[in-house]
Amino acid sequence: MYLLNQSPALLTDLYELTMAQVYWQKDFNDHACFEVFIRKLPDDWGFFVMSGLAELKSYLQNVRFTEDDIHYLRTLDMFDPAFLDYLQNIDFESVEIRALPEGTPFFPNEPILEVKGPILTAQLLETYILNILGFSIIQATAASRLQIAAQGRAVVDFGMRRAQGPVSSIRAARGAVTAGMPATSNVLAAKLLNAKPSGTMAHSFIQAYTKEEDAFESFARTYKSKAVLLVDTYDTVNGIKLAAKVARKLDTEDNIQIRGIRIDSGDLVKMSNFARRHFDENNVEWIKIFVSGNLDEYKIDDIVQQRGQVDGFGVGTSLAVSRYAPSVDIAYKLVRYGDRDVYKKSENKATHPGRKTLHRTFRDNRYEHDDVIKYQPSSDDLLRPFSEPEPLHKIAERLNTMLYHLAPAYKKIRNPETFPVNFHIKLPE
Amino acid sequence: MYLLNQSPALLTDLYELTMAQVYWQKDFNDHACFEVFIRKLPDDWGFFVMSGLAELKSYLQNVRFTEDDIHYLRTLDMFDPAFLDYLQNIDFESVEIRALPEGTPFFPNEPILEVKGPILTAQLLETYILNILGFSIIQATAASRLQIAAQGRAVVDFGMRRAQGPVSSIRAARGAVTAGMPATSNVLAAKLLNAKPSGTMAHSFIQAYTKEEDAFESFARTYKSKAVLLVDTYDTVNGIKLAAKVARKLDTEDNIQIRGIRIDSGDLVKMSNFARRHFDENNVEWIKIFVSGNLDEYKIDDIVQQRGQVDGFGVGTSLAVSRYAPSVDIAYKLVRYGDRDVYKKSENKATHPGRKTLHRTFRDNRYEHDDVIKYQPSSDDLLRPFSEPEPLHKIAERLNTMLYHLAPAYKKIRNPETFPVNFHIKLPE
Repeated sequence: MYLLNQSPALLTDLYELTMAQVYWQKDFNDHACFEVFIRKLPDDWGFFVMSGLAELKSYLQNVRFTEDDIHYLRTLDMFDPAFLDYLQNIDFESVEIRALPEGTPFFPNEPILEVKGPILTAQLLETYILNILGFSIIQATAASRLQIAAQGRAVVDFGMRRAQGPVSSIRAARGAVTAGMPATSNVLAAKLLNAKPSGTMAHSFIQAYTKEEDAFESFARTYKSKAVLLVDTYDTVNGIKLAAKVARKLDTEDNIQIRGIRIDSGDLVKMSNFARRHFDENNVEWIKIFVSGNLDEYKIDDIVQQRGQVDGFGVGTSLAVSRYAPSVDIAYKLVRYGDRDVYKKSENKATHPGRKTLHRTFRDNRYEHDDVIKYQPSSDDLLRPFSEPEPLHKIAERLNTMLYHLAPAYKKIRNPETFPVNFHIKLPE
Repeated sequence: MYLLNQSPALLTDLYELTMAQVYWQKDFNDHACFEVFIRKLPDDWGFFVMSGLAELKSYLQNVRFTEDDIHYLRTLDMFDPAFLDYLQNIDFESVEIRALPEGTPFFPNEPILEVKGPILTAQLLETYILNILGFSIIQATAASRLQIAAQGRAVVDFGMRRAQGPVSSIRAARGAVTAGMPATSNVLAAKLLNAKPSGTMAHSFIQAYTKEEDAFESFARTYKSKAVLLVDTYDTVNGIKLAAKVARKLDTEDNIQIRGIRIDSGDLVKMSNFARRHFDENNVEWIKIFVSGNLDEYKIDDIVQQRGQVDGFGVGTSLAVSRYAPSVDIAYKLVRYGDRDVYKKSENKATHPGRKTLHRTFRDNRYEHDDVIKYQPSSDDLLRPFSEPEPLHKIAERLNTMLYHLAPAYKKIRNPETFPVNFHIKLPE
């Protein structure tokens, strides 16, 4: 399978290597500072959430050119053997990193990560650092938006099958946990992140039985208080009634109280309200109602606004691939080389020169504005030296606290206001 | 790093395992047939391209529950130890697969893959098969659309940094090669797929020099006929002139003819036309012109229609994450269990019961229509027994030939017509 037992060093664009060889030939040994930032917010997004440092750390620890990598590069007939020897001895962990702590909300064009080291070394890390941070940030932010829409109801990550790849599915689950979601259907992600795996049954399970009721009963007897029954395989109203009947029976006969039902199609507000009434009227009021089926933050908001009697949402595609913002314009730009601040002025893609410090002003229990200034060592700088990732629960707590201090206007899932960020960086000339 | 040295067995939704345990408890040993299909085409797409079987094969060969996986599942306190023993002994390669050969264009709701085996075994494969096929198909199709728009000009995959994860970047590169693209910037993908890696320089390389001209010259002297110079770091017109000057100098002094330039921002038609004229007038007519910067099939089509003097396009985001269709509604549905055809009738998500055969009618050098009929062994069935993946060049040839036989109306990148597919499957009742 792709990636199993692959070294990560070749997870890069070829140009990082072609540039590196020239730096090596010409003795470009000075330290460089590269800055990571995102150019703009996707439509309807009011903030980003920093994420990805744990995977970044793991990458830095694992990236090195193996014999096999070097053998492959030799076949390309572009690289000097002495340069390839040099590549094998690079210590990628020697770069110094300053970063926003994970779980910190941030805004466009703010510096979020700085990589400082020999230009060759720091340049080689560009491609995969962007790959890691870009989608990790997207996921933590997309998950936060879902949480905001759900207003305290549970949202669970169902996205594994729709994710664009296995690692992206784990980034999605990590974003979900960062945003405070209670569980993921993704078993490997649950294992790696020490999160709660969640899941029940597919329509195929119902179909494998000749009678829907038998499928419900055997599943419920096995999983008891963890059982969630899928009620929409044939006729949702009938499925809801059968679930109530089975729940009643198991409670009476064996004191088993099943957890809930899941509705995966149709009018979710109407069906969940019908289910709530039916369960309450039939003395199975403990049954929770979960809904799924192409949900996103807008549909969740609609269901909440329409007072759908829903206890939790399963979200697949819109989280797993971030349907409305599958990528962001994240950049890794040289801002300083040796003792010289640098920048570029390409049309619509200009950069601010030099190392930077990011300040956030807090007043009356709210974040008021940010200031991006020329770098100065400061305990108020939001960019902090990064060496070790933090526990995920701590990151989730930070996000929760910091989002609390961000005014609702910036957190709206539709048409949020623009958080004020002042840039105090002078362009040369 | 996520996934290195991970077993793929836990790359699944928890519900596959909870269902499996009930099948095991209740002795559901009959063979099941699951069918994979995609419910609908994304806006503006007229066809899909089959892809993903090589990765599917690798998955089937590698998926097994390791001691470590079982240890983790035991901690969840949901599974009988005897069931966990059973899991460790499943032979996933025992399932029988029928599939459209990779590179075959297909249409919504057509069966594209069938998995036949003991229900427990075949069910456990659902999540990751959907993960593999969904994005592989998206990528092969998205890449084909880019190729169609480029009308014979080169398109190169630049998407690694924007991909949602490392494996998705390899799926993207494989889709690119399947569609006939000549190269990818992704070094690992090039290695794994035996494709050509491609790449030149970033803006940071120019910035590391105090003079743009020096950066051009040292890069060009190193890479000679492979050198492509990035001309838009400061002022594109000036960058083009400097590139011409350096090219002229290297040709005169050392008989080195550089390959080309790349323009990554601004008005690409205007700038490429200026560059073409300038190079032709200054006796460096061999310099090729490549453009990049947020390109997609629509922008490429516009550039081609406006007669931009462009030799090749570098495409990142829109290919790597399939910006306009980051996911598809791909399903893995039980269609037969034992001797019983099954289906579901959930609102908007109904399925057709039973195993199926897919016929495509060919007339006057064109595909005329498809017919989905009840399964019958037939040499005309587009679904063929799958055991080993084919070489990628053979897949690319198939796609090229089959797209040639698909009328232009179905291949338009805007508002394509709907290819006729007739379903001859009777619903019970």
